[in-house]
Amino acid sequence: MPAATAHLIPPPEEAAPTTRDRILEEAARSFREIGYQKTTVADIARTLKMSPANVYRFFESKKAINEAVVERLTGEIEAMIAAIADTPKLGAPERLSRIVTALHDDSRRRFEAHPRVHEMVEAAMSESWAVCQAHVDRIGAVLARVVADGVREGAFAVTDPKSAASCIHAAITRYCHPVLVNRQPDRVEPPLPVMIAFLLGALRQPPRDAER
Amino acid sequence: MPAATAHLIPPPEEAAPTTRDRILEEAARSFREIGYQKTTVADIARTLKMSPANVYRFFESKKAINEAVVERLTGEIEAMIAAIADTPKLGAPERLSRIVTALHDDSRRRFEAHPRVHEMVEAAMSESWAVCQAHVDRIGAVLARVVADGVREGAFAVTDPKSAASCIHAAITRYCHPVLVNRQPDRVEPPLPVMIAFLLGALRQPPRDAER
Repeated sequence: MPAATAHLIPPPEEAAPTTRDRILEEAARSFREIGYQKTTVADIARTLKMSPANVYRFFESKKAINEAVVERLTGEIEAMIAAIADTPKLGAPERLSRIVTALHDDSRRRFEAHPRVHEMVEAAMSESWAVCQAHVDRIGAVLARVVADGVREGAFAVTDPKSAASCIHAAITRYCHPVLVNRQPDRVEPPLPVMIAFLLGALRQPPRDAER
Repeated sequence: MPAATAHLIPPPEEAAPTTRDRILEEAARSFREIGYQKTTVADIARTLKMSPANVYRFFESKKAINEAVVERLTGEIEAMIAAIADTPKLGAPERLSRIVTALHDDSRRRFEAHPRVHEMVEAAMSESWAVCQAHVDRIGAVLARVVADGVREGAFAVTDPKSAASCIHAAITRYCHPVLVNRQPDRVEPPLPVMIAFLLGALRQPPRDAER
């Protein structure tokens, strides 16, 4: 395309956002900066110079807007860890380690930059549990895939990758859960690399039922 | 002691509570039933038929009362798990398993019975972190002791029992942390016994540093 006309036709990734996208973008900004509780649909409409009725054409409630905002945010996290899970020529233990580290770093970064994101997450957890659960399930599925890869590679010895992955997932709650991640952030014991090494050790051993 | 006079001299464990004890008892009841936020020092004094000034002779603030209430509560939990840690003739894996189960059951029971206990815990976590940290450290010390026992017994293979115990402690956050334990209580994945078996597996393997 000649340079002189290129600016007339925006490339696809810069295409004008739809009204729905603009509402989500503004809602996400307001939830981050002002907080979920203090943001009203009327505020969102006013900032976008549209009527509240127009916002309601796309979302039936603030709760529905929040669900879409949370789905977009969790979608980003899921895409990030899926990319790590798919890294070629990297052993499963290292991919698992990078995924857990990425989840931790992402969670801390998000909440340090915007402490009010907590309100949005709390609202989602209390009002829209299905959205949160679906995210948790998708993260769990990626972890299970990498654990299964590790079993095939001979790095892990677990008999049930899905169950082992759910153990890993639960075990990293302290490091990744939005409700905990920024509590006393300077002192998370043990440091994450120590925890990851410990959990990888568990994956090398099939759990025994009869311990008693 | 003849039965006819026994009621005149209360046995030591039934001795009249001190004023300090009565204040703590009433504060704990009010924090549980009315909530930390809505309880005032004046309310506590009124219920005990004493002046607020008298309460302040023992505690300089509501925060100081809460710290004492939380210390008593955490002391009960610590005594409970220390008793399990000291159970004679029980292998370390089984003692560890029982400790984790007891922490989980205790946490759920407390918060199911009195959801408003959360307010008290939140207040302690934000205003009196040292009290919470001391509790976490004491639980960690008991776990480390049992892990070290397991190494001596030949059941565990970790090289650093204290570090391994801190991994166990962090890994059970999802099951024991007061802020999480009653969120979606019907669906904690994986079930705790599966998680415990997984973690015991990790203890049988020394973690390796060089995974990459």
